[in-house]
Amino acid sequence: MKPIKKLDQMVEHLKNKGEKKRIAVANAQDSNTIGALANAVKAGFAEALMVGPKNEIENAAKEQNINPDIFNIIDVSNDEATIYARKLVKNDEADVLMKGLVGTDKFLKAVLDKKEGLLPPRAVMSYVCAIELPKYHKLLFVTDTAVLPFPDLKQKVAMLNYSVQMANKFGIENPKVALIGASEKVSEGFPNSIDYAMMSKMAQRGQTEPCIADGPLDVFLACDPESVRIKGVDTPVAGDADILLFPTLEACNSFYKGLMLFGGGELAGLIQGTTKPVVVMSRSESAKSKFYCVALSCLMSENN
Amino acid sequence: MKPIKKLDQMVEHLKNKGEKKRIAVANAQDSNTIGALANAVKAGFAEALMVGPKNEIENAAKEQNINPDIFNIIDVSNDEATIYARKLVKNDEADVLMKGLVGTDKFLKAVLDKKEGLLPPRAVMSYVCAIELPKYHKLLFVTDTAVLPFPDLKQKVAMLNYSVQMANKFGIENPKVALIGASEKVSEGFPNSIDYAMMSKMAQRGQTEPCIADGPLDVFLACDPESVRIKGVDTPVAGDADILLFPTLEACNSFYKGLMLFGGGELAGLIQGTTKPVVVMSRSESAKSKFYCVALSCLMSENN
Repeated sequence: MKPIKKLDQMVEHLKNKGEKKRIAVANAQDSNTIGALANAVKAGFAEALMVGPKNEIENAAKEQNINPDIFNIIDVSNDEATIYARKLVKNDEADVLMKGLVGTDKFLKAVLDKKEGLLPPRAVMSYVCAIELPKYHKLLFVTDTAVLPFPDLKQKVAMLNYSVQMANKFGIENPKVALIGASEKVSEGFPNSIDYAMMSKMAQRGQTEPCIADGPLDVFLACDPESVRIKGVDTPVAGDADILLFPTLEACNSFYKGLMLFGGGELAGLIQGTTKPVVVMSRSESAKSKFYCVALSCLMSENN
Repeated sequence: MKPIKKLDQMVEHLKNKGEKKRIAVANAQDSNTIGALANAVKAGFAEALMVGPKNEIENAAKEQNINPDIFNIIDVSNDEATIYARKLVKNDEADVLMKGLVGTDKFLKAVLDKKEGLLPPRAVMSYVCAIELPKYHKLLFVTDTAVLPFPDLKQKVAMLNYSVQMANKFGIENPKVALIGASEKVSEGFPNSIDYAMMSKMAQRGQTEPCIADGPLDVFLACDPESVRIKGVDTPVAGDADILLFPTLEACNSFYKGLMLFGGGELAGLIQGTTKPVVVMSRSESAKSKFYCVALSCLMSENN
């Protein structure tokens, strides 16, 4: 598979493949997601199982000039819709679970339920985004933008593995992972740099998904070969990172939001760690990014 | 004074003012800084006191096709140059201290020396950058990009005050300060959000430099009015921030470097907290940003 370097190439890949992934949307009467879903259905790679009150879902579609007939509406009360949608996924009647007009807390509670949820015991849940930037020559995967506030070593290793698995789905084998700090110096004053030294070695020893991991590195050394040359730093990432792993949620979240606002970025993001893809989108994302999130969930649900 | 919205307007302001600030450069035979200094001298707002071995300084200038006669060379051995340059500033024979070809550790040791240094007792040293972005309608001040790894409340308050003072020098009165987190939610799970709640209230009570401070806010709510409208968050910053204050060095450093690489940013940055401006530039910055750093030191040394 040729590496996918743009988000539209991901969409093309899914169209060419011609498989339809079944997306179960919890409380689907959601103006925030309904347009993205309609586009995914029209593009031919998704089937939308809209779970919730039928008349509300139809009205929400019509308000956006979308014919509700393109959706598969499952008429369930609002109170039951999230649990019902989760059950569809759990029973292999759907491939992807997606949040609609339901609070994030309630939705994630259903996802994380020990008995009926989608997270295996002791698994780490995290979030990975693939970002397309006009000024970078390929996609940039970043983690964790949304879930883990202050990841410890075990959680960081999970973040690394998830992001490598995602990059693999984009046809990127052995991706270059930059473990991001404020500089390239390992120092006890930056506890994350200690984790990074261990993770670099773990990757080298084959204790992680296959990748070239190195850190700490700052963003310049991660993504700009010229900075590597000027500073003369010995790093296998060499300014050509596929993946940036951040030390905290606050760091990753502000980084990606800066690039969305000021770098002309578009993104596709997804929860990782669950047995099947789970889509939770922010209302603030662009319509394009929302569509890409749905497409990404279909890509990640492929059996390669 | 009309607010300065572009870094070139800062340069114009200095040219129009017509004052020459005296910049003492420690170990000035530095190809990294000599071009920026020459441009500042030619623009008419700086006088360069180049401290170091005369022949080395002349050679470094000539290598870059710069006539060394535009500089004031003070022939001192490499071992003594940093201390000598600091003394010039300490004795009011220079207005600005600048790092040349000397290790950052050695240079900062001289700056921080308890008896002969430039940092008042118990003062907090920090770093503030003014960033110009094609996609933002004014300058964006960010702190701390370079000095404080994990600022506590007292240090965050100092960062806030320094950045407000810098914004004031750009003609921005009562600047809007966004205290950056991953979301707008105050939560004990994010200790920085506790500091932010206190700082918002401190600013309201007049316990800080005059400003409109609010946080936690994510980058979207800080800089994008549309996100504020969509999310319906009540914030006086309202997507129109002048200043972004970050919870950690790792967060701020990766944010600004992302914008430099992918957002077409240029910057002017300076150490804050010292009795006189101190310039330490990264080799990785663009030639333009280096020039702006020198100009900023002259602006901050103005007596308004």
